[in-house]
Parts: sequence; C-alpha cells; structure tokens
Amino acid sequence: VSSNSNIWAVIMAGGVGSRFWPLSRRARPKQMLDLFGDGAMLRVTADRVASLAPSERQLVVTGTVLGDSVSEELPNLPSENILREPEGRNTAAAIAWAALWVKQRDPNGILMVLPSDHYVANIERYQTLCAEACKVAATGRIVTLGIPPTRPETGYGYIQIGESIGQGGAYTVGAFKEKPDAGTATQYLAAGNFVWNAGMFFMPCELILAELERFEPELMAQIAPLADPAVTAETVAEVYPTLKSISIDYAVMERTDKVVVVPGEFGWSDVGSWRSLYDFRDDGQSSFKRGDVLELDGSGNVLFADEGATVATVGVKDLVVVHTNDATLVCKRDEAQRLREVVDALKTGDRGELL
Amino acid sequence: VSSNSNIWAVIMAGGVGSRFWPLSRRARPKQMLDLFGDGAMLRVTADRVASLAPSERQLVVTGTVLGDSVSEELPNLPSENILREPEGRNTAAAIAWAALWVKQRDPNGILMVLPSDHYVANIERYQTLCAEACKVAATGRIVTLGIPPTRPETGYGYIQIGESIGQGGAYTVGAFKEKPDAGTATQYLAAGNFVWNAGMFFMPCELILAELERFEPELMAQIAPLADPAVTAETVAEVYPTLKSISIDYAVMERTDKVVVVPGEFGWSDVGSWRSLYDFRDDGQSSFKRGDVLELDGSGNVLFADEGATVATVGVKDLVVVHTNDATLVCKRDEAQRLREVVDALKTGDRGELL
Repeated sequence: VSSNSNIWAVIMAGGVGSRFWPLSRRARPKQMLDLFGDGAMLRVTADRVASLAPSERQLVVTGTVLGDSVSEELPNLPSENILREPEGRNTAAAIAWAALWVKQRDPNGILMVLPSDHYVANIERYQTLCAEACKVAATGRIVTLGIPPTRPETGYGYIQIGESIGQGGAYTVGAFKEKPDAGTATQYLAAGNFVWNAGMFFMPCELILAELERFEPELMAQIAPLADPAVTAETVAEVYPTLKSISIDYAVMERTDKVVVVPGEFGWSDVGSWRSLYDFRDDGQSSFKRGDVLELDGSGNVLFADEGATVATVGVKDLVVVHTNDATLVCKRDEAQRLREVVDALKTGDRGELL
Repeated sequence: VSSNSNIWAVIMAGGVGSRFWPLSRRARPKQMLDLFGDGAMLRVTADRVASLAPSERQLVVTGTVLGDSVSEELPNLPSENILREPEGRNTAAAIAWAALWVKQRDPNGILMVLPSDHYVANIERYQTLCAEACKVAATGRIVTLGIPPTRPETGYGYIQIGESIGQGGAYTVGAFKEKPDAGTATQYLAAGNFVWNAGMFFMPCELILAELERFEPELMAQIAPLADPAVTAETVAEVYPTLKSISIDYAVMERTDKVVVVPGEFGWSDVGSWRSLYDFRDDGQSSFKRGDVLELDGSGNVLFADEGATVATVGVKDLVVVHTNDATLVCKRDEAQRLREVVDALKTGDRGELL
C-alpha cells in the first residue's frame, strides 16, 4: 500500500466511556488503554494507517484533558496536529474542525476519519480497503466501510447495501439503520445485504465541508472562527462550547446522496466491553488473560491484571475480573453491560476519584 | 476483672501462614492484619487482656522480621518484652523462653499463653474465664480453655472432658485428640463431653519449666543460655536454630498429669481462612464486606478491599474476592483451602515478592 500525499488520517480520540472501568478512567479512557498487550489502542490505530498517512498527515481530535497523553503516546505527531476540544460536541463538530484544518494546508486533502479504539486483526487487508476507499472518495464520494455481520448483533448500527457503483467495490447506500432489536438483527443477518457500520469514513475535505454547509449551516457559521490558522486556544475555548452538538451520521451521512459503502472483512471489533475481550483469548485457552494471571481450575473468564499486579483465581467460571491498584471489578461475564450501574453508583457515592 | 500483679500475658505472634493471601504477606502475617475493622488482631489480643496483664506484663514472642511491626502496633509494650525468634522452633521453645524470661522478673508469675490471631466476640466473658483459669493455675495446674463445639469441625483439635476438680469450673482431661475426620467429629459433637482446643494455656512459670525439664530435658539444656538476663541478640541467634522443634501439646500437655480444662463459651473463632469470615457478616447482610465494597445483586460472598481501594461486584455469588494494591484473589468460597495451591504456584513461578 503506497502513501498518497493527499491522504490525511483524522483519528477521533474524544471518547470518555467507562465501559472498561476500573482500567478506564476520565484521564485514561479506552483509547489510551493497552488491552491486547500491543500498546495503547490510539497508538495501534495511528501505526495501522501510517503507511497511508504518516505522522505529519495525522490529526488527533481529543479532549483538552487528554492532549498531553496523546503527545506521549504519539511522539512523532506534530503538536499542532492535536485538536484539543474544550468539551465534547459530538462528531459533526469534530470532523468539521478537522476538515477546516486540513483544507488550510491541503485543499485537495482526502480525510480518513477513524475511531481510535477499535480492533483490526487483518491489518494488510484493512490498509488495502482504506486505500481503495480513498480512491473512491477522491471521485467525489463519502465512503463508509461496512463489516459483513457474523451474528445478529444488537449493539451496532447497520447499513443496507444498494447497487454497485462499478468502482472500487463500492455500493450505494440503501439506508442507515439504528441499533436494531434482536428480531430485526436476525432479519438483517438473514437478508445478507446489511453490513455493520464501523464508523470509518473517507472523503475529500472540501466535500464534507460543502455537505456540512448544506445540511448544518448553523454549525458551520458557529465554527467559522476555527478556520483561522492563527486561532488561539482562548478562541477555541470560547467558541467550542457553543457549537451545535450532532453526530456526523445525523448531520450528513443519513441525508447526503454522496455516500457509498465499501463492504470488507478485516477482523474488526469495536471492543465494546470487557465481555468482548472473550473473543480474543489466545489459542487453546478457555479464558482471556492479560497481565500476570494465575487461573486454577477456571474457564470462560476474562481476567485482566494491570501492569505490575497479579490476579489469581480458584475454581471460578464465566467471570470478568479486572485488577487495578485501587480497584477490582468482579462481574458475571454475561452481565458486563451492568458496569454502567457500578459507575453510576460510584458517581453518587462520593467516590468520583475512582472515575 | 481486677488485675493480679502476678499475671503475665505471653502472646504468641510467630505465625507466618499464607491463608489470608494476598492480604497476608511474609512481612504482614495474619496477626498483623485488621480483618474486622477494629485494628490488627495482635493489638486487639493485647487490649483484650490488658485488664489482667497490662503492657508491662505482656510478652510478645515473634519472628525477628516482625519485631518492629510489633513495636508499632503495641507502642506501650516495653521493647525488651518482645522476644524475637531468629527462626520459628515451634511452641515448646517459645513458651520455655517466655517462662524463663518471666521467672527472672517474677518467680511467682502466672503465664497466660495466648494466640495472637484469634477472634473473641464476648470479651467480658472471656476476661472472666481467663481470671478464673489463672486462679486455678495458681494452685499448681496447667489450665487449657475448651470451647463447646457448635458443629462437627474437622479443622480443630478436641479435648475430652473428664471429672470436675471442684474448683473454678475446671475438669480433668480425658484425652487430647488430633483433628478428627468428619465421622469422628460428628461423634465428638454428639457425645457432648468434647471441647475444641483453643490453644490458650494458663500456668505458673515455674510449673511449666518443671514439666518441660521433666519431659524435654534436651530442649531445656539447649535453651539454658537464654535464661541469662544479659543474653545478647548474638547468643540468641546462635542458640535458637539449634533448639528442638516440638509443640507444647506434644512436649507437655499430652504427657503431664497437671493439665485441666476449663470449658467456656465466649464467641471464639480461630479465623482460619477467608471462608471463616463469612460467619462474621453484619446483621442482615448476605455477604461479608470489609473496606469500600460495592456489591450489586450478589450474596454469599466474602468481599475485602484493602485500605484506600474499592471492590465492585456484579451478579456474583459464593465467592471470596480480596483486593490489595498489587494482587487480587477471586476464589469460590467453598474452595478457600485451595489458596495453598495459589501460594505454591507463586513460589515456583518467580513471583516470590508477592508472598
């Protein structure tokens, strides 16, 4: 995969989720975690696309609180390539800011908008698909990657595939579908023409700006001061909290006629919860284990010991066990979604320092 | 309970067990742990008998490695009242040394030999029984406390009760019995004249020295240099490792005709494992919880968070969960005895710093 000097990676690293508590904290959200032993997910994401867009053509959009951590994880990233959001205003604002920023430097720039916290098993296949998607994007399209579903998952949005556009394996989009209920998900899977929306978008910066202008002129008027190459952090701090908060899906994808989908299988997971790590257990292992783990007579577990610590289990099955130096989580594996209740209880229980 | 100026407490604090891993470590064995939120078990033990034997008449026999920790826990204890064993040589040697030490200062001294890591619910009743036992001891007896059994426990030794000696609720001893199998334990319970051996002994220092001289002259010859009030740490370090290693039960109790038993119920437990803490759960609670514990939809658990840490559980039952800053244990409650396997695995697995 050769590098095209017009390709820019926009890595979306604003997430503040708590689905990996106690490992994830406000100051260390999921994208900063090393869940697989190969480095922080943000760094792995950046490395994965470096052959298409090297560090100087990578942007990271993140919260001000995480800016320094991003610098540490990505030492080759120019400091000005970190767009620090004073507060999260959803994906449309983040992408608009990134598109304005790239346009100043490269009016013909093609953006790859990528989540910072997803897993990809087959990196070579992924890079080939991204390069393909960029080529299609360069013809005046907004390209989204679609993952062929392998189970009736209710946790993802779906994209209904339309007609081939006769170029780069791309298809028109029949419809974007919200997270379905179980019955609907089963129908999608059976129908065969639905793919998971992986939240990865490819488009010319000028095109996305034009579409945003068309559908969200209010947002674009609000964000205009950030187009100034000499914009100060003070101005950003003033302007940003006033921006309309709307997702890029609602703002553009579900309205534009420019969007196409490129289906592709590359061993993708959004790694949505501790439970999801169970799918990543090592060959021949009946439990997922990371860190110094000692499991006696157990199976079906997700066992995670933070650096320098040990987790020992005796006779337990189908649990999530996570140790950090100041907190331990023990949860039935199939109830990992109830972690939200734990986090809510910590919030109300005067234990905010644990979040 | 009034203090008799001849009563000396000999607190046996040489234990090095690992049944409370990961909370217990070599440098912090069970007697140094605060399992109930009322202080280290050693300190609670010392406080419990302070009305009978104040600090200046308390001795703590412990390992050299723990000497400083003992001083910190018991700041009023004179430093010379800590007998530091260079290595453990079992209970007969420890008691012989303590008896020699007391005899130098108080030839008429009565010793209360007490484990440092047991639990007593009814402190007043306990103090009354100890005072009673000391009175009986002063008539030339070795008194042992016996706990009326409440279940066919196979983890304790038993004492068969003989005839009343018509004094202080004391009885002759029919026999000492090793830890029984389940069937035998059930028979003991049904028979009604067996009590648990709590390992608490009361006797004049001169009497126990005489009996040791009678039954274990070799040990007494070996230990003789330690009778010198000016004995140095160097001499102790030379002599101690050569001492015969034998329990006081084998050396004296099971051989002497001076022993009597005082049965008494005072809410005793030897707190032998994490599992045993389940019996100490708070009123109305279906799990034992210590420290900052957040339990969602769980029951039957023993949940322990070390100081400054949080344990959160979701949907789990009948587990032991223990968090310390560098290790977490998760174990089925009924398999807590398999903790030994964990500790053995840590020993062989180059993780000795966790022990």
